Amino acid sequence: MRIVRFGRGTWGSVEGEVIRATRGPGGPSTGRTYRLHEVRLLPPARPTKIVCVGRNFRGHIREMGHDSLPQEPGLFLKAPNALAAPDEAIPYPAFTHLLHYEGELAAVIGRTMREVPEEAALDHVLGYTCTLDLTARDVQAKDLQWVRAKSADKFLPLGPWLATDLDPQDVWLRTYVNGELRQEGHTADMIFPVARILAYISSFMTLVPGDVVLTGTPEGVGELRPGDEVEVAVDGVGVLRVRIAPAVPG
Amino acid sequence: MRIVRFGRGTWGSVEGEVIRATRGPGGPSTGRTYRLHEVRLLPPARPTKIVCVGRNFRGHIREMGHDSLPQEPGLFLKAPNALAAPDEAIPYPAFTHLLHYEGELAAVIGRTMREVPEEAALDHVLGYTCTLDLTARDVQAKDLQWVRAKSADKFLPLGPWLATDLDPQDVWLRTYVNGELRQEGHTADMIFPVARILAYISSFMTLVPGDVVLTGTPEGVGELRPGDEVEVAVDGVGVLRVRIAPAVPG
Repeated sequence: MRIVRFGRGTWGSVEGEVIRATRGPGGPSTGRTYRLHEVRLLPPARPTKIVCVGRNFRGHIREMGHDSLPQEPGLFLKAPNALAAPDEAIPYPAFTHLLHYEGELAAVIGRTMREVPEEAALDHVLGYTCTLDLTARDVQAKDLQWVRAKSADKFLPLGPWLATDLDPQDVWLRTYVNGELRQEGHTADMIFPVARILAYISSFMTLVPGDVVLTGTPEGVGELRPGDEVEVAVDGVGVLRVRIAPAVPG
Repeated sequence: MRIVRFGRGTWGSVEGEVIRATRGPGGPSTGRTYRLHEVRLLPPARPTKIVCVGRNFRGHIREMGHDSLPQEPGLFLKAPNALAAPDEAIPYPAFTHLLHYEGELAAVIGRTMREVPEEAALDHVLGYTCTLDLTARDVQAKDLQWVRAKSADKFLPLGPWLATDLDPQDVWLRTYVNGELRQEGHTADMIFPVARILAYISSFMTLVPGDVVLTGTPEGVGELRPGDEVEVAVDGVGVLRVRIAPAVPG
């Protein structure tokens, strides 16, 4: 099933070009239907928190200048003000001169997780989607922690919908900028599989329905400029399209 | 006015020993009253995010081994799973062997803030309260970012209520452990006053009603052990009491 959120916050399931509205995510049908291309999609999650893995693909660890592999998932947070809808234009903030894309697979929690073992972790996932972890690379090392670098408004486009039937360790993840392939990784190459990440987080932080977990970006991160179009594609999910707003003429 | 949240999430105002229930925080009275000591207080905020200033008192910067003063507020995030109620017992987590107290003044946002200048910032605050920024000091430097160190479950006791009539730059902040004074700072000595902190955050991150901003801890941070009682006292607010749960007999 593909779970969408749209309009003023209505949930639904996508079947081809039709959305069937539901009571809550994955809930029973309300009987109303919509045309997919006539609604405005919203981020398909309403998280209380967004927990991210910083280093989960060997190639990205190397390209960031690190030589040792992590022993445990290295986490950081993004705040919910960072959420942006599919197809939304993202303003290039004034505080940065080096905005980077990081395409990722995101898991959205469906059931409360507290100290859940790895083998039961995926049972607590509602679905998976595409996300773009926008990062102000120039302030990332300079600031005390990665708040400005990772949690500025609209720094987390998410969508277009949740795929519920997905093996999160068996998909290709690709990022395109202006149609050109920039990142390509297979989730079987993650250092920490999604189940391990979720179990680790839940060992000290209770995850609740709607929470979003980002699972790391493969190598090939790079710079965006105003006017660029970014696409994050995950097999079995679809494509998240994001536009970086053109510069305002001075 | 003193704004409380209690029971199953009822808001009210405290007058002496009486709570008058209100519709929403600071809203009109519902006509119902409660005895303060007969209800269970809850954290007096329901944040979408918790933004914290890491280094805002010279003495704390020195005691942490840093010699230069920050040019801008150094921020980090705590996640909402960290919230704990006044008088709640906080379990000492298994992953840390060095749990530290950091007493702080917290501001709770009352009106949405986006690119608000410093001179208008405090008009957007609903009220101020006491908070204990619990920190797993041993994993803080070791982990990629301060997620485990700062956002484990119940690492942010908050309360007992919000004081709405407070000059946030004119109060003493004190932390006691088992009745002994450990931290004492005056908010006039903050490097960045609260208005400056809020304006800075709002320049790139939209703050919404209920969001919590921690304003930094004075010198004197130190270790807690199971069984300890911590009190954070702010003039004009009151006292937040926290117990660290005794060790489970092995």
